[in-house]
Amino acid sequence: MTGDNPGPGWLKHFPLLADLRRSSGRALAQDGVAGTITAILLIPQALAYALLAGLPPEVGLYASVLPVIVYALLGSSRVLAVGPVAVAAVMVSAALIPYAGDDPARYLTGALILSGLSGVILLAMAALKLGWLTHFISHPVLSGFTTGAALYIVATQLSGLTGIPVPRDAGTDGIVAALFGGRDRLNSETLVFGIGAMVLLFAARAPLLKLLTRLGMQRETAGSIGRTAPLLLVIACTVLSSVFDAHGRWGVAVVGEIPHGLPGLSLHFLAEDGWLQLLAPAAMIAIIGYVESISVAKALAFRRQEKIDPDRELLALGSTNVIAAIAGAMPVAGGFARSMVNYEAGARTQLAAVVTALWVALAALLFTGLLAPLPKAVLAAIIVVAVWQLVDFASLRHSWRYDRGDGAAQAATTVGVLVFGVETGLMIGAGLSLLLFLYRTSRPHIAVIGQVGDSEHFRNVLRHDVRTWPELLLLRIDETLYFANAPRVESELQAHIVEAKQPNDVVLVMSGVAYIDTSGLDVLEALEMALRQNGSRLHLAEVKGPVMDRLAGTDLLAALGRGHVHLSVHEAVAAIRG
Amino acid sequence: MTGDNPGPGWLKHFPLLADLRRSSGRALAQDGVAGTITAILLIPQALAYALLAGLPPEVGLYASVLPVIVYALLGSSRVLAVGPVAVAAVMVSAALIPYAGDDPARYLTGALILSGLSGVILLAMAALKLGWLTHFISHPVLSGFTTGAALYIVATQLSGLTGIPVPRDAGTDGIVAALFGGRDRLNSETLVFGIGAMVLLFAARAPLLKLLTRLGMQRETAGSIGRTAPLLLVIACTVLSSVFDAHGRWGVAVVGEIPHGLPGLSLHFLAEDGWLQLLAPAAMIAIIGYVESISVAKALAFRRQEKIDPDRELLALGSTNVIAAIAGAMPVAGGFARSMVNYEAGARTQLAAVVTALWVALAALLFTGLLAPLPKAVLAAIIVVAVWQLVDFASLRHSWRYDRGDGAAQAATTVGVLVFGVETGLMIGAGLSLLLFLYRTSRPHIAVIGQVGDSEHFRNVLRHDVRTWPELLLLRIDETLYFANAPRVESELQAHIVEAKQPNDVVLVMSGVAYIDTSGLDVLEALEMALRQNGSRLHLAEVKGPVMDRLAGTDLLAALGRGHVHLSVHEAVAAIRG
Repeated sequence: MTGDNPGPGWLKHFPLLADLRRSSGRALAQDGVAGTITAILLIPQALAYALLAGLPPEVGLYASVLPVIVYALLGSSRVLAVGPVAVAAVMVSAALIPYAGDDPARYLTGALILSGLSGVILLAMAALKLGWLTHFISHPVLSGFTTGAALYIVATQLSGLTGIPVPRDAGTDGIVAALFGGRDRLNSETLVFGIGAMVLLFAARAPLLKLLTRLGMQRETAGSIGRTAPLLLVIACTVLSSVFDAHGRWGVAVVGEIPHGLPGLSLHFLAEDGWLQLLAPAAMIAIIGYVESISVAKALAFRRQEKIDPDRELLALGSTNVIAAIAGAMPVAGGFARSMVNYEAGARTQLAAVVTALWVALAALLFTGLLAPLPKAVLAAIIVVAVWQLVDFASLRHSWRYDRGDGAAQAATTVGVLVFGVETGLMIGAGLSLLLFLYRTSRPHIAVIGQVGDSEHFRNVLRHDVRTWPELLLLRIDETLYFANAPRVESELQAHIVEAKQPNDVVLVMSGVAYIDTSGLDVLEALEMALRQNGSRLHLAEVKGPVMDRLAGTDLLAALGRGHVHLSVHEAVAAIRG
Repeated sequence: MTGDNPGPGWLKHFPLLADLRRSSGRALAQDGVAGTITAILLIPQALAYALLAGLPPEVGLYASVLPVIVYALLGSSRVLAVGPVAVAAVMVSAALIPYAGDDPARYLTGALILSGLSGVILLAMAALKLGWLTHFISHPVLSGFTTGAALYIVATQLSGLTGIPVPRDAGTDGIVAALFGGRDRLNSETLVFGIGAMVLLFAARAPLLKLLTRLGMQRETAGSIGRTAPLLLVIACTVLSSVFDAHGRWGVAVVGEIPHGLPGLSLHFLAEDGWLQLLAPAAMIAIIGYVESISVAKALAFRRQEKIDPDRELLALGSTNVIAAIAGAMPVAGGFARSMVNYEAGARTQLAAVVTALWVALAALLFTGLLAPLPKAVLAAIIVVAVWQLVDFASLRHSWRYDRGDGAAQAATTVGVLVFGVETGLMIGAGLSLLLFLYRTSRPHIAVIGQVGDSEHFRNVLRHDVRTWPELLLLRIDETLYFANAPRVESELQAHIVEAKQPNDVVLVMSGVAYIDTSGLDVLEALEMALRQNGSRLHLAEVKGPVMDRLAGTDLLAALGRGHVHLSVHEAVAAIRG
C-alpha cells in the first residue's frame, strides 16, 4: 500500500487517485472487467430496489452513477460496491408511506430528503466523532434485522408476483390477509412471468454453477455467466412482453415509460417541509447502511491486507448520500453481495466502481426507453431471489447456542420487524441487547483468593486448593467498577468482610478493573472509611496504570497512603504479614 | 446476629420478631428512647411534606403509622426510618398537578394510586429479580438530582414563606416570575412567621449544638435538644397564631381543620381511572425512593456489621407503599436524616420504628385538632431547612475533579431538574451517564506486549523495555468483548497485524476479558479464519474460566484446537518458539 513515491500530500485524501498513480495498465484492465461484471449485476437490481422503495425505477439508476463515483473518490475501501440496497429500500418505503400518503411527487421528494438527511447525519457523526454510536447494533441484532427485513420484503413482493393488489401500507399480516382475500384477482400471466423468472434466477445460481463446472468450465467463468442471468432475464422478458403485448392483452403490470438520461443536479427538495418527521427514519437508514457497508469493507480489506478507517467511511458514505439527494436518487450503501462480486471479479481499486457507474449511465442514456414493456413481476422476482440470501436462520442457531441472551435479542428483532415494522423492530433489538449487556456488567464476579502453594499466584478459594490467613482477606473484582455494579460490589464486599469476621487487613485485587467511575470511587471511599472506623485497613493491589493515574488526586488514595497500594498480591501479602 | 436458639423457621422472615426474641429489657428501653426522638423529628416533617406534595397535612401522618409498622416487620434494616420524604413529595406533586388539575378529591386519589403503583412496581422488581435496574441511577446523577430537587423545593416554598400566590404548576422560572410580579401582595406577617421560623431552625442546628457543648452539655444531649426545635416551633407558632388570630386579622395562611384520628383502610382508589398516566412517575418515585433507602440502610448496616438484602428491601418497601395506599397515605421511603437520628439515638431494632409510629398515631388522635391555627409558613420553613441539607455542590466538585464525564452528568441532572422538572431531569441524567459508560467501554485499550527481561511477565511495549519477536505478535485486550466495542477491537487487531507485516503467530491475551458476547465471538472467528487463509495462526492465552467454558462448543475453539489455547503468555511463547 505504500508506494515508493507517495506523490503530493493532498493525494492521500483521495485513495483512488493515489492508487491509479501507481497502477499498471494490466491492473487497470482488471478493474475494467470487474466494474463491468458488477454493472451487469447492479443495473437490474437498481431498477428493482427503486420499485421496492416505492419509487420510479430510474431513481435506482440515478443512485448508481454520481454517488458511486463520489464514493470511489472518497472511500477508504478499494472494493466496496455502493448503490441502492434492499434493506435501505424497504426502510425508505416504511418511512415515506406515512409521510407522503398517495402523493407521488411528495414521495419522491421525501426520498431525496431521506438521502440528504442520512448523508448529513453520517457527516455529523464523522465531525463529532460519534461513529461509535453505530456499534450499538450488535451482530445478532443486525442479522436478526436483516432476516426480518428480507422476509418482509419477500412478503411485499408477493403482490407484484401475483398481480393481487395489496395496500401499500400493509404490514406482514395485512399482506397475507390481502393476498388471501384477493385470491380471485390473481393474474395468471403475471404469475407465470414472476414464478418463471424466480425459477430461472434460482437455477442460475448453485445449479448452473454445478452444471457448468461439471461440464469442465472454470469456477470463476461459470460464476460470471450465472451473474448475467438477471440482465439476460430482463432483456428476454422485455422482448416477450412486448411481442405478446402482455400489458394490453393480459393486464400484466409493466414498468412503463422510463425517462431517458440522467436528471440535472437540483436542490429543490430543500424547500419541502416535514424534515423533522423524516429525521428518525433517516438516522436508522444511515446507521444500518453504514454498519452494513463497514462490515463488508472491513472483511474484504483484511483479506487484502489493507486497513479501513471507520471515520473516513462515515465521511465518504455521508458525502455519497448527500450527492445522492442532489442527483435525484434514493439513499445508498455498500451492498454485501455486490461487493463480493466486485472483489471476486478481481477489482483492485475503486476504478472498478467508476467503470460500473459509467455503464449504468450509458444504460440510462441509451436503453431505458426500451424497458417500458418489462413486467414488474420480473423485478419482483429479482428482489425475492436477491433478498432470499439475506434470510439467515443458521446465524440465529449460532447465537442461541453460544449465548441465550444474544439469541433471544436476535429472534426478537426478526419478529419485531415482521410484527411492528422495520424501525420498531430495530429499536426493540438494539434496546434488548443493550439491556442484556447492562444486566451482565451489573453483576460482576468477586472472588476471595488465596495463595497457590508457595508460588506467587493467587486464585479463587472456591476453585483451587489455596492458603489463606484469618486476619487477612484478599478480594478480586473481575469487572470495571461503575455505577450499575457499584451497589452490588458494595453489598458483596461488605458481605465478604462481615463473613470473614472483620479481618485486620482487606486487599482489593484490581487486575480486572479497567476503569473506576465516581460511583465506584464512592464505594471504595466508604469502604475505606468504614474499615478504618472499625480498626481495619484497606489495601489495593494490581491497580492498572490508567486507573492509578486517575485515583492519584483522590481522598481515597490520601486516606490509604501509598504504603497501602501494592504492585502485586504477592507484595501486598508480604508487606502486611511483615 | 445469630442467636444460640434461632427459634422457629418462619421467624427469619420477620427480623424484628427474631430480634425481639433475644433482646434484653435494657435494649428494648433504648429502642423506646430512639423511637421517641425520631417521632419528635418526624411529626412536623410529616405534616410539612404532605403540604409539599400538595396534599392535606394529615396524609403525612397517615404515611407515618401503618407503613412504618409494616416496614418494621418486613425490612432487613434495623435502623432505617421510613416515612414521607421531601424528594418523593415533590415528585408526587409534579405527577399530580397535570393528572388532577384543580380537583382535590382526584388529587388525593392520585396520591394513593402513586403509592400503590410504586409499591407494586417494587414488588414486581423483587419477583422478577429486576432490582439491578435501580442501579442505573449513578451516585453523581442521584446527587445532582437531589440537589436539583432540593433547590426546586426551596423555590416552591417561597410562596408559602411570603404569602405571594404562585401558580401550582409553575416551574422554577414561573415561580421566580410570579414572586417578582406579585411582590406588592407580600404578606408581612406571613413573612415574619416564615423567616422567624427559618432563622430559629437554622440556629437550632450547629449554632445551638456549639453553644450547649460550650456550656458543658454532652454532645448527644445537645443534639437531642436541637432535634426538638421543629416540634417546639410548631407548638409555639400555633399558640402565637391563635392568640393574635393571625389568620383573621392579617390573612396569614394557616393549616386549618385537620381530621382527628386515622382513616379506615380502603381500596376505593382502585376504582379511579388514569393509572397508566401515573405509571411512569410512580416508577420514578419507586426507584428514587428505593435507591435512597437502600443506600442509607447499607451504610448504617455496615457500621453495625450487619447485611442488607437488596431483594428483601424491594419486598419490604414495596409492601410498605402498597399499605400506604390502602391506609390513605402518600408514597414513603427511608429518609437519610431521619435514619441517622434514629441510629445515633441508639436504635437497635425496628422496635424503635414501631414506637415512632405509635407516637405519630397518638398525635393524630389527640393533637391534630389543635393545629388549625398553625401558619403554613412555619411548615414551609421546616421544609426549606430540612431540604437545604440536601443541596450538595461539594459532591459536584468531587465528581468533576475525579471524572469530567460524571461531573457533567451530575450538573446536567441538576440543571435539568430546575429547567425541565424532576422527571425529565432524572431521565436526562440517567441517559447521559449510560451514554458515557457505553462510550467508555466502546473504546477498549489494546496493547502490544513483550517479555520483561527473562521473567514470566509480559507488559506493554510502549511503557516498558521488553523483548519482542518479529514472527510473533502478542496483543492484550483490556476490556470485556461485546458488540459495542467489537467493531473497534476488530479494526485495531487488524491494524496491529497489518503493521506487524503478517506475523506467523498472533496471541490474544485475554486476562482483562470477563465476557465475550456473540459479536465478540464473530470478530475472533473472522480473525482466525482470515489469519489461517493468509497462512498465520491465532492463539489465545490467559482465558478466564467462565469465558473458556462458553467458548468450549464454538467453531472458534474447534478451528484453533486445544493446542492453540495457552494458560499463560509465558507458556504460549514457549510453545510457539519451541
